[in-house]
Amino acid sequence: MLIVKPLEKLIEEFSKFPGIGRKTAQRLALHILNSDIEYTNSLVQALVELKTNTKFCSKCYNLSEDELCPVCSNNKRNHKIICVVENISDLLAVEKSEYYNGVYHVLGGVLSPIKGIGADQLRIKELLKRIEEDDIEEVILALNPTTEGETTVLYLADQLKNYKLKITRIAKGLSVGMSLEFADTATISNAVNLRTELK
Amino acid sequence: MLIVKPLEKLIEEFSKFPGIGRKTAQRLALHILNSDIEYTNSLVQALVELKTNTKFCSKCYNLSEDELCPVCSNNKRNHKIICVVENISDLLAVEKSEYYNGVYHVLGGVLSPIKGIGADQLRIKELLKRIEEDDIEEVILALNPTTEGETTVLYLADQLKNYKLKITRIAKGLSVGMSLEFADTATISNAVNLRTELK
Repeated sequence: MLIVKPLEKLIEEFSKFPGIGRKTAQRLALHILNSDIEYTNSLVQALVELKTNTKFCSKCYNLSEDELCPVCSNNKRNHKIICVVENISDLLAVEKSEYYNGVYHVLGGVLSPIKGIGADQLRIKELLKRIEEDDIEEVILALNPTTEGETTVLYLADQLKNYKLKITRIAKGLSVGMSLEFADTATISNAVNLRTELK
Repeated sequence: MLIVKPLEKLIEEFSKFPGIGRKTAQRLALHILNSDIEYTNSLVQALVELKTNTKFCSKCYNLSEDELCPVCSNNKRNHKIICVVENISDLLAVEKSEYYNGVYHVLGGVLSPIKGIGADQLRIKELLKRIEEDDIEEVILALNPTTEGETTVLYLADQLKNYKLKITRIAKGLSVGMSLEFADTATISNAVNLRTELK
C-alpha cells in the first residue's frame, strides 16, 4: 500500500463528509499532516465541544447553549408566526437574510419513503403542540421545492387544516439573477403558473 | 449572536483548510452536529493518529510508518533514478499514474522569497548527499510549472551541474484533453517552443 495507514484512515473519514470526494479529502488530510500540532489540537477540541456542549432549543429545536435558543428567547420577535424549516442550515439561511422576524420550527428532515423517514421521525407532534399552546396565527412552510419537500408540505397542510390559522408556503419562481434561458422546466412552469398580477 | 459558540468555533477551524470557504465550513460543521457521536470519535482518533503515528522516510521524506517508506524499501524499483517533487501530494499524484518506477525525493516546498522560503528550508543538502552516496544516474526535476517551481528548477540544475548524472525536467505543453482555444499564453508558448519532431 502506497498511502500509509494513518493517512488513509483520515482520508476515509473526511470522505464521509457530504460533498467531499476522495481528492478533496486527501488535500484536507495532507493539510493536517503539514500543519502545526496546535491546529490539530484546536480542531479536535472544537469537534468534541460541539458534540458535548450544544443542545437543541426545547421549543423550536434550533441549536442552543441554553434551554431556549436566541430566537425563542428574544422578546422583539413575533412569536405568533412560525416558519417551519427542514434543518438548521435552512434556518441559518433564512436568518441570514435578516428579513424574517417571527420564530422557527426545525422539522428535522422531510418525508422520504426511500430513506425510511416517516411522519413519526419528524417533529410534527411538537409543532402541533406549539400551535395549540401558543395561539399561533400563521405557519409558513419554508421547505425546499424538492419532491420530498413538496410531499411534506402537502402532508403538513393536511395536518394543519383543522386549526384556525393562516398556512402559507414560500414562493416558488425564478431566483434573483437567474435567466429563463438557463432555468429548468419545473422552475419555468412554477414561474408561469404562479405569476402575480401587476394591475 | 445567532450561531452558538461551539458551532462557530468549529466553522472557524474548518475555514482554515485550504479551499474551504465559510459556507462549506458551515456545511461540514453541521454534518458533524447531525451525525452520530461515533463518527466524531473516529474522526478525532484518525486526526490524532495521523499526527502521532506517521513519520517521514529517512531517505526520501515520503510519509512512512517505518524507517524507510514503501517506495524506498521496494527492491523492484530503480534506485538509480530520483524524481524530485515539491510535496507528498505531488508524489502521490505521480505514483498514482503507475508510470514511474524510480524513487523519489520530497523537497518540502519550492524557493519563494515572498513566503520566506530559501534554499536552506528545502531538503537540497539531503538530495546532494543521496546523489553522492547512492551513485545516482538521473535526477528528474518534477516541480510544477509555476514561477516558483521554475526558479527552483534553475537553482537545482545549477547545484547539480558538477555531478556526473543526467538532469531532466518533466515536459511542459498542452494537457491531455485540453484545447489550444482555452490554453493560456504561457502554455501555448511552451507547447510551440518545446515542440517535438515527428520525422
